[in-house]
Amino acid sequence: MRSIPHHLLKKIIEEALIEDIGTGDITTDSIVPEDMRSKAIILSKDDGIIAGLIVAKEVFKYLDADVKFNEKCKDGDSIRRGDIILEIYGNTRAILSGERTALNFLQRLSGIATYTRRCVDIVSPYNVKILDTRKTTPLLRILEKYAVKVGGGENHRFALYDMVLIKDNHIKFAGSITEAIKRIRKNLSHIYKIEVEVKNIEELKEALENNVDMVLLDNMDLKIIEECVKIAKGKALIEVSGGISIENLESIAKLGVDFISMGKLTHSVKSLDLSLEIE
Amino acid sequence: MRSIPHHLLKKIIEEALIEDIGTGDITTDSIVPEDMRSKAIILSKDDGIIAGLIVAKEVFKYLDADVKFNEKCKDGDSIRRGDIILEIYGNTRAILSGERTALNFLQRLSGIATYTRRCVDIVSPYNVKILDTRKTTPLLRILEKYAVKVGGGENHRFALYDMVLIKDNHIKFAGSITEAIKRIRKNLSHIYKIEVEVKNIEELKEALENNVDMVLLDNMDLKIIEECVKIAKGKALIEVSGGISIENLESIAKLGVDFISMGKLTHSVKSLDLSLEIE
Amino acid sequence: MRSIPHHLLKKIIEEALIEDIGTGDITTDSIVPEDMRSKAIILSKDDGIIAGLIVAKEVFKYLDADVKFNEKCKDGDSIRRGDIILEIYGNTRAILSGERTALNFLQRLSGIATYTRRCVDIVSPYNVKILDTRKTTPLLRILEKYAVKVGGGENHRFALYDMVLIKDNHIKFAGSITEAIKRIRKNLSHIYKIEVEVKNIEELKEALENNVDMVLLDNMDLKIIEECVKIAKGKALIEVSGGISIENLESIAKLGVDFISMGKLTHSVKSLDLSLEIE
Amino acid sequence: MRSIPHHLLKKIIEEALIEDIGTGDITTDSIVPEDMRSKAIILSKDDGIIAGLIVAKEVFKYLDADVKFNEKCKDGDSIRRGDIILEIYGNTRAILSGERTALNFLQRLSGIATYTRRCVDIVSPYNVKILDTRKTTPLLRILEKYAVKVGGGENHRFALYDMVLIKDNHIKFAGSITEAIKRIRKNLSHIYKIEVEVKNIEELKEALENNVDMVLLDNMDLKIIEECVKIAKGKALIEVSGGISIENLESIAKLGVDFISMGKLTHSVKSLDLSLEIE
Amino acid sequence: MRSIPHHLLKKIIEEALIEDIGTGDITTDSIVPEDMRSKAIILSKDDGIIAGLIVAKEVFKYLDADVKFNEKCKDGDSIRRGDIILEIYGNTRAILSGERTALNFLQRLSGIATYTRRCVDIVSPYNVKILDTRKTTPLLRILEKYAVKVGGGENHRFALYDMVLIKDNHIKFAGSITEAIKRIRKNLSHIYKIEVEVKNIEELKEALENNVDMVLLDNMDLKIIEECVKIAKGKALIEVSGGISIENLESIAKLGVDFISMGKLTHSVKSLDLSLEIE
Amino acid sequence: MRSIPHHLLKKIIEEALIEDIGTGDITTDSIVPEDMRSKAIILSKDDGIIAGLIVAKEVFKYLDADVKFNEKCKDGDSIRRGDIILEIYGNTRAILSGERTALNFLQRLSGIATYTRRCVDIVSPYNVKILDTRKTTPLLRILEKYAVKVGGGENHRFALYDMVLIKDNHIKFAGSITEAIKRIRKNLSHIYKIEVEVKNIEELKEALENNVDMVLLDNMDLKIIEECVKIAKGKALIEVSGGISIENLESIAKLGVDFISMGKLTHSVKSLDLSLEIE
Repeated sequence: MRSIPHHLLKKIIEEALIEDIGTGDITTDSIVPEDMRSKAIILSKDDGIIAGLIVAKEVFKYLDADVKFNEKCKDGDSIRRGDIILEIYGNTRAILSGERTALNFLQRLSGIATYTRRCVDIVSPYNVKILDTRKTTPLLRILEKYAVKVGGGENHRFALYDMVLIKDNHIKFAGSITEAIKRIRKNLSHIYKIEVEVKNIEELKEALENNVDMVLLDNMDLKIIEECVKIAKGKALIEVSGGISIENLESIAKLGVDFISMGKLTHSVKSLDLSLEIE
Repeated sequence: MRSIPHHLLKKIIEEALIEDIGTGDITTDSIVPEDMRSKAIILSKDDGIIAGLIVAKEVFKYLDADVKFNEKCKDGDSIRRGDIILEIYGNTRAILSGERTALNFLQRLSGIATYTRRCVDIVSPYNVKILDTRKTTPLLRILEKYAVKVGGGENHRFALYDMVLIKDNHIKFAGSITEAIKRIRKNLSHIYKIEVEVKNIEELKEALENNVDMVLLDNMDLKIIEECVKIAKGKALIEVSGGISIENLESIAKLGVDFISMGKLTHSVKSLDLSLEIE
Repeated sequence: MRSIPHHLLKKIIEEALIEDIGTGDITTDSIVPEDMRSKAIILSKDDGIIAGLIVAKEVFKYLDADVKFNEKCKDGDSIRRGDIILEIYGNTRAILSGERTALNFLQRLSGIATYTRRCVDIVSPYNVKILDTRKTTPLLRILEKYAVKVGGGENHRFALYDMVLIKDNHIKFAGSITEAIKRIRKNLSHIYKIEVEVKNIEELKEALENNVDMVLLDNMDLKIIEECVKIAKGKALIEVSGGISIENLESIAKLGVDFISMGKLTHSVKSLDLSLEIE
Repeated sequence: MRSIPHHLLKKIIEEALIEDIGTGDITTDSIVPEDMRSKAIILSKDDGIIAGLIVAKEVFKYLDADVKFNEKCKDGDSIRRGDIILEIYGNTRAILSGERTALNFLQRLSGIATYTRRCVDIVSPYNVKILDTRKTTPLLRILEKYAVKVGGGENHRFALYDMVLIKDNHIKFAGSITEAIKRIRKNLSHIYKIEVEVKNIEELKEALENNVDMVLLDNMDLKIIEECVKIAKGKALIEVSGGISIENLESIAKLGVDFISMGKLTHSVKSLDLSLEIE
Repeated sequence: MRSIPHHLLKKIIEEALIEDIGTGDITTDSIVPEDMRSKAIILSKDDGIIAGLIVAKEVFKYLDADVKFNEKCKDGDSIRRGDIILEIYGNTRAILSGERTALNFLQRLSGIATYTRRCVDIVSPYNVKILDTRKTTPLLRILEKYAVKVGGGENHRFALYDMVLIKDNHIKFAGSITEAIKRIRKNLSHIYKIEVEVKNIEELKEALENNVDMVLLDNMDLKIIEECVKIAKGKALIEVSGGISIENLESIAKLGVDFISMGKLTHSVKSLDLSLEIE
Repeated sequence: MRSIPHHLLKKIIEEALIEDIGTGDITTDSIVPEDMRSKAIILSKDDGIIAGLIVAKEVFKYLDADVKFNEKCKDGDSIRRGDIILEIYGNTRAILSGERTALNFLQRLSGIATYTRRCVDIVSPYNVKILDTRKTTPLLRILEKYAVKVGGGENHRFALYDMVLIKDNHIKFAGSITEAIKRIRKNLSHIYKIEVEVKNIEELKEALENNVDMVLLDNMDLKIIEECVKIAKGKALIEVSGGISIENLESIAKLGVDFISMGKLTHSVKSLDLSLEIE
């Protein structure tokens, strides 16, 4: 699996700890001796999919270079309420001061992986893939896209620089889909795939005539989607998005599309409930 | 209202744009001429409370120093599906390249404010205040605590450095609540308030005997809370937390506590649905 | 044309000025009064293609927010020895202290554009495009790829994150081209194009059987290239690289390939000779 | 030899890797298992002088703290086509993802050292030293000046802050060389050496009357240089610059000057051809 | 004792070394071989209290990861002229290049601790505590407040964000002390203590009526302070500041106040004289 | 006069404000309306030399881009108790939140300039110059050296990279002064001046035989200094340092040395007393 580049991980963790610790954890530093060492565990209080162990571990490593871990599960595993996720052996101040930051990451990423897995389980019998979007938490995209992957989902483009996605506003400025694609092919290198967002069958046909790699059926009802699939299948990859919930997921998956993308995977996360306990 | 310090806002926005734009918005730059200017609107597709207009505006200003705005509402206003939030007059590339980042912030912060307002409306008849926690999104705490305030909630301590909160793990290391507080008073300056997390009536009494400023009743059932309130009222501020949902909020508020703190305000946000449209 | 994102430009210029000015330009500050203003010109002492005016201008703007310019040409223009490129009206200290940094950028980028244009002029009658590579100057890739584009060349992938290029070492680890591509398709999102570097006809055929988007014929002699073109034409885009100089460029272009990529565009630049003069 | 301060080296390498790896090496991460380890060699495909091994090694160390090296030569050594430069034992992903960045540095620095050595070999029989200039690649000056030194050249001032060099534009503003030097001596501390750029014999004499430490004969023909040497020898160090190529280097060196400075050492580098191979 | 968070320490030390070493220690690097190792000692040339050993040690560690120390005393110890403070075993270049930076920190912090201890010794018989202020050296507050603590003093609020201190200018804008406090209680969370600066008895009474946590008697003469103490004792903590020197300290301490705050602890430090010697 | 490079000034001010304001000035933001504007003055409560107005002004500009100033004096002016230094017209929150940071800078720099001026006035009749040292406050050297200059002093080398100063420890490693200088001349470029610290007449003679630019007479008594001056005058610039106070300054100045350097100018500053008042 694609790993999180260390330079990005290090920067996010450092800034998160600066945010929470700042000039010092006044409670812990006043109560706990500087050199004390302890064992702590991270415990699940919920059922779900764990994601982000590397992030949690790096938080504690940042505060105590000598911390040791015993991993009781690994990213992508199903965990149940009461399961021990991770054993931590390290400096007590480091454990207590890093606790909230480590959990904030781990709970959010596990929440994303858990929800993604639920969606993936619904659509995979139909050979459909769940895609994330750019509706991620600012500054945490690399982590959130990683969590989607851990949950079994696929990553859409990472950002504005690694794929062409022509949306309605672009089409408006170009005048037509054809003209928009013409400008892309004239001004941009050939190395990027091109996807076009289409609102109806007419637009779909225009996109396909321009040999795009992928079409995004935006906010269509089931009937139209079905018709679009018939037209586009085999000519371009087909993505559906807009107004998709866990309830209507299967009805869309059945229609033969390739991808269903859901902003909800990352913009409206429910954290997985975890806690850290000193043993 | 407490404003978001500009140095923090600037840094968050810069890093968010670097994350999304990176080496360039290849779609927009290939289709839209460099000097084109347009009008766009941000539109609500949901009912709720708006929060974070300053953040959205700074995103566009970062990309186009000459952008102009016409604010149709202000932070804290109730908005309804179909309302125009903001009119934007600026460089077209800047609008299109900044759209997702601006919306990602605005939707999340408005989601927090909206949910907070719902909770506040339930408890305010009882003179109870809703508090946030440190369960915020790493790197975005300053924004999320601002959104809680916009929604009518109160901010708990910002981080580990500006208030003493003695939790169960601290008590375990000190041996007792009394010893923990003794260490705080011996080692730490007098300028910080002290709150102690208590699990039962015995601990509550011990905390009160040590003249703490505030007690945190953690995960107690209604009956015990009621008893605690009788004991602590007038001696220390009383905060309740743990397992609180919008469903049981009123039953707790009725008991005469001062504060109810909810991690859910920030760790499990549902974004408010907004969109940007070119006119 | 794709613009250089401002956040990248600003950072590069700031660091370049810190490198050269550091704790202060001791010569200029001791001789020139703080508030003096002057006119300067940037003059060409060579024939070539100009590239990087925006960079040079931002250098002076960084040192004097009120500087004004009169552009006598624009990026991509052919200039001749003796031509005035830019007139600068600003603080004298800013002009003298920024001179070398501005010229260092402008000379290098114009050198790249000039050399690229020479190559492009040779191959364009054959409908072949010149591509750059990742053999750019560390920290300046965004500028150097921009200069290649100004010179009429095309940009290959920007970095390791925006396109798949399977090279000989990857194939060695996977065991075969087929296996390498299988792993890509299994582990990586569908949104990236795939190119495979091939050393002989056998490898080319294997790559094509796997429906790659593009093949890179590496270090082949003309005869083999010709044969490869026959096999691959219409099935994948064809790039040639390795041992290419301005002398053998035309002989390759004639063979019907789509792209010729040249590390030399950026790794062995000859600066264009420019000077700044105070009028 | 003067070493490259670690804080500068670390920053340059980190930014170079961020530039090239960004959100991840999608090809390598999809094909090569995370924990695989390999041996690689850096091989010369050209004759020249090697420079920058420390930089290349730090690139790999940044990606794999446990990487080990076996150096087959050291900076300043003459190498020949086919020579092994460095053996690398480390994480395979780290080797493949760092390859291009390491080579980009090593090839450029070795190119500078190689060209410098050629020039030094020509002038050293005449007891003349080759100097670099401030015409270096922005952001890489510390590395490029190091490579000049490795090649046997001398470093001129590092930047605008560590020596006084009065150039024609400064003289223009001061009114005369004498006035310029007067201002330097009045306004600036005595700890810096003073060099003056002179265009003719008259200016040379004026400079010498002011007891400068060094004179820069700018763009003079051989005859005038010869005359200047007679006048200045023993009174100030003599540097020649402007229009110097490897062809006319010896003719100038013969004239008895102390230094010949060449912008070409760094502004128009030809990279040394190196490659990395997995064994 | 509250420790200095490592992220702050690391940043300060890195920037201090960049300031002093920059592009290299040209003297040391030219004279001392790269791999030489030596023993050095830090020696006191004065009597006082040592503070900042951790800072000095981190300076050398930054330059030589393998440096070893033998601490002959610890922060807070009384040292006498001639005492050895620290033995250092490490790379010779690292020791010489880091010497001045390490001493600059150690001398300043020890100077602060020494002066603080003198003041504390005067007032502690009266059960009064010495407080620092925000009149610290910009960028070094975390270190200077640590040194005050080492000297036996107490830390006042760290900055503008962790306690409310209503000063005369705030009162002027609010109209009255009562109104200022009303605004604080309306707009700000309850978690911060409130202190009010008062100029006379009338203001003191108004502050006390508003149940503030602490009053700051600003620039009052002894008689008025005495009267204030009678009024405020037991109702709020009492701090005195303004025009306090080591001469009048005892006369104020006798009056029964709780705290005396002195800007002089940090804004007018006399460094403790220390030197580093190679053995 | 040499100005403070803007990139350094901006960075120092930004970090100082982050240190003091952090997540917000909770007192001011709760009391003062966001858009209020006021006039404030900076007032002297002491006699001295003002230095650092540019720094104070930039602090307020950072917080309020529209702030206006009326300067009642300029850097280097003598001011007296009661003098108005600067009038400030700006956003009230910006003035109150920036007050302490602006004063912390201005008081320290004015303290340095004031003390320097006193020393300069003593020695200037003897044509001797006062020099600063590297014993400055870490991170603030550029400002403190500027203040010395404002006070009429001269700046010694800025840091380890811009002049050679061979001290006793270097001599110990080289074996002798002669060997140390030989290594410098062999390994280092000719562009830096060389100064040698000498402890006695013998060492002085050895240094002079090696044609150094400057000698530093370290910790000698008056008699020896006198003898040294006789020997060295006209052969090298003569600097005296060690154990110098304002009391013995004149006795040394009389002896005919060129420079007296004093660490005390910057390592043991007494701040000038200034205050900010709202009008």
